[in-house]
Amino acid sequence: MKKFENFSQWFDKILFDADILDNRYPVKGFVVYKTWGFRIIKNIIEMLEEKLDETGHVPMLFPVIIPEDYFAKEAEHIKGFSSEVFWVTHAGDKELDRKLLLRPTSETAMYPMFALWIRSHADLPLKVYQSVAVYRCETKATRPLLRMREFLWNEAHTAHRDWNSAERHVREAVKIYDSVFKRLGLSYLIVMRPDFDKFAGAVYSIAFDAWNPDGRVNQIGTVHNLGENFARAFEITYEDIDGSHKYVVQTCYGFGVSRVLAAMIAQHSDDHGLILPPEVAPFQVIIIPVVYKGVAEEVYSYAREVYEMIKREGIRVHLDDSEDKTPGEKYYYWEKLGVPIRVEVGPKDQRERKVTIVDRISFRRRVIDLEETVKTIKSMFDEIIEALKERSERTLKEFIMDVFNEVSLRKAIEDRKIARVCWCEGLECAERIREVSGGEVRGHRIDIEEKPDKPCIICGKEAKKVIYVAKAY
Amino acid sequence: MKKFENFSQWFDKILFDADILDNRYPVKGFVVYKTWGFRIIKNIIEMLEEKLDETGHVPMLFPVIIPEDYFAKEAEHIKGFSSEVFWVTHAGDKELDRKLLLRPTSETAMYPMFALWIRSHADLPLKVYQSVAVYRCETKATRPLLRMREFLWNEAHTAHRDWNSAERHVREAVKIYDSVFKRLGLSYLIVMRPDFDKFAGAVYSIAFDAWNPDGRVNQIGTVHNLGENFARAFEITYEDIDGSHKYVVQTCYGFGVSRVLAAMIAQHSDDHGLILPPEVAPFQVIIIPVVYKGVAEEVYSYAREVYEMIKREGIRVHLDDSEDKTPGEKYYYWEKLGVPIRVEVGPKDQRERKVTIVDRISFRRRVIDLEETVKTIKSMFDEIIEALKERSERTLKEFIMDVFNEVSLRKAIEDRKIARVCWCEGLECAERIREVSGGEVRGHRIDIEEKPDKPCIICGKEAKKVIYVAKAY
Repeated sequence: MKKFENFSQWFDKILFDADILDNRYPVKGFVVYKTWGFRIIKNIIEMLEEKLDETGHVPMLFPVIIPEDYFAKEAEHIKGFSSEVFWVTHAGDKELDRKLLLRPTSETAMYPMFALWIRSHADLPLKVYQSVAVYRCETKATRPLLRMREFLWNEAHTAHRDWNSAERHVREAVKIYDSVFKRLGLSYLIVMRPDFDKFAGAVYSIAFDAWNPDGRVNQIGTVHNLGENFARAFEITYEDIDGSHKYVVQTCYGFGVSRVLAAMIAQHSDDHGLILPPEVAPFQVIIIPVVYKGVAEEVYSYAREVYEMIKREGIRVHLDDSEDKTPGEKYYYWEKLGVPIRVEVGPKDQRERKVTIVDRISFRRRVIDLEETVKTIKSMFDEIIEALKERSERTLKEFIMDVFNEVSLRKAIEDRKIARVCWCEGLECAERIREVSGGEVRGHRIDIEEKPDKPCIICGKEAKKVIYVAKAY
Repeated sequence: MKKFENFSQWFDKILFDADILDNRYPVKGFVVYKTWGFRIIKNIIEMLEEKLDETGHVPMLFPVIIPEDYFAKEAEHIKGFSSEVFWVTHAGDKELDRKLLLRPTSETAMYPMFALWIRSHADLPLKVYQSVAVYRCETKATRPLLRMREFLWNEAHTAHRDWNSAERHVREAVKIYDSVFKRLGLSYLIVMRPDFDKFAGAVYSIAFDAWNPDGRVNQIGTVHNLGENFARAFEITYEDIDGSHKYVVQTCYGFGVSRVLAAMIAQHSDDHGLILPPEVAPFQVIIIPVVYKGVAEEVYSYAREVYEMIKREGIRVHLDDSEDKTPGEKYYYWEKLGVPIRVEVGPKDQRERKVTIVDRISFRRRVIDLEETVKTIKSMFDEIIEALKERSERTLKEFIMDVFNEVSLRKAIEDRKIARVCWCEGLECAERIREVSGGEVRGHRIDIEEKPDKPCIICGKEAKKVIYVAKAY
């Protein structure tokens, strides 16, 4: 099972072997998150929520169900989502008075409340988030973590006094996501989605497209400027300093927790199994006593000393002193789970008050003094995430291929590349790009500035944008 | 608005004033948890989950939807729940092949997976938990936190080798819940539910009934021994040491997060507003600079020094240095939110390097030396939770009333008491108790041993149990 040759089977095997999830739940598109996977998820969410708290967002929790009439208030929004929502129509054996739907996203659950809460300019900006599951009945083939009918995300929703404040906030939201994704070592393009592919109800949408080993891109986050679209539909107004009543301007952004986990696994793991950034690993360090007959007790007690020393520093460490497995079996077990650092403690280590330390990426062994252990572990954490980030960035670059005509575009997508092309911004040319290649127009980058230096790949007229084309999940 | 005279309005006012939740969501029985309330909830869940982790439980996350055919596998279970489940019948404009329901509890979502995971005795015991929302279409009048159609809970599910292991585990689960509830200062009866009121599918059910100011009891937790009922329905078997194949014996238990929050608010708060146990308060300490003209800067900077000193100790502290409110307004604001300790810092405090410290229960003021602050705060935390617990226990005792005949039973329930009666264990007498009083038979206590010393309150024959009768949420 090779990551870049046979992504699908490789990925499924990791999800199963590393106790991330079980895909055998008896309803298509719904999975069971198992313990190791769920602990990673909790750590990712905590990392994000801390950042949101620091930047003035507040947590709340809104109901999972939305009444049909509220869902229908913003015309574009319902058009975009109605074909894939799950409908709750009965309770017990009675039909409900009005249909309810499971949130596919929470604008229409939150904004009726925003209208109640926002009265004056002093109530603004309002910045709310929640980490929840959302529901979309995907008609395409479902894939665990990547395309599911129930998936986990964090959604933030804000209201501002005017367009400029909202606009500034969009940039801040992009920065927040960027910083969290970077701490997870991920690489991606930050793109402005073309107008025909923006979020239903938004003025524009920015997206984070992460690379995936099979060449498809994985949208791990989006940030939208909603303008006054929802404010008008839900009558969210405020009294300004001068006494006038105005509509708020809103933004919202979604951090795809399930998809971020997918990206982390897909970008970092190798053919030995899972690799985890230390910051989100449920155990960051595993200690394995390497015992022989006669000297077991001293080694176990030394291992416990090492354990206590590391634990005192707030590092998530586990001592595997189970006696039913050999050290080799334990190495193999914890490698598959992606624990970033293994500390081996054998009789020689114990006698010399040293430890043997091995990282999950290079498997390089170092013997160090006991007193150096914590310091070494901490610097290895930094080295590991830097190495993951660097490797991932390199791979992203390798995926991108400049193409200048339809034939090479088709070939690039067939070869599982992300194609970089010049485009005139014409709708027909975008449609033709899709037809020719089977890839989607993902948009132009906003993380770097790129100017087209060739004509439009389709019509040959002047190009306005450098855009990226890829298959997508 | 008085707590014991007009509970309902008093409670609604606290929920609103203390930013716990907003009850105006446009679907009956569904509420929006606001920031302060949701932070308290997160702290309660964290406290419980830590305890579950320590005792060998593992977190997982199962889907919110359950297919009808799985839901129907255990006959008693579906009988008990089918009248109140929400049905998902359509996706987009298409009818689903098979109906799905929103989990009212997760036995039938989890146990098909248990059947896949459990193979041998080495896989046992299995102890899984999740903190999620569940859905029951209550037909009685809904009440925020106390009786809702969407409510938050933590549910744990375990599988064991035999009846005795399951039985021992039931006792452990009761202890776990008891210890967490006690840390929240709650008082309640731990009762064995009568057979006619056990959980649908269980062999027996134990429940924690907390007192409520209006005399109704609030079931905040339950623990069930499921025997082999679900194991047989879902074919959950294991191979024992001797090679034989056996059904597992299961237990499950639910910690009603929304109802625990309700109990905490209802038992501890007073007519000034919310009172919180320090362990779950979002801010445990609020610092308020008391400034006058001319000396503001020194006081603010001293307040920041106090803040840093307290924060360093891992105490959740907030410095309210906003300039748009007077100190008096700030006192009032943070009192309503139930912050356990207020530290006032005025010019005199600053000059003498002292602080003035006030707790939320007694409002007693003490002036102490700066160096004593952290130590004093920590011991006040202990005093506060002890005082809350003691007051709550006293109230529970006052609610309980011994009654010996139908007239005084009816009177006791009318007077909003919890009636303590002797009962013959006959079904007809239980039915008559309900008819006479409007209260429900809640069961006999297992936290203390009680032997009936009078005949059955209804039939006059020999009593078998001392039971408690009360109205309930």
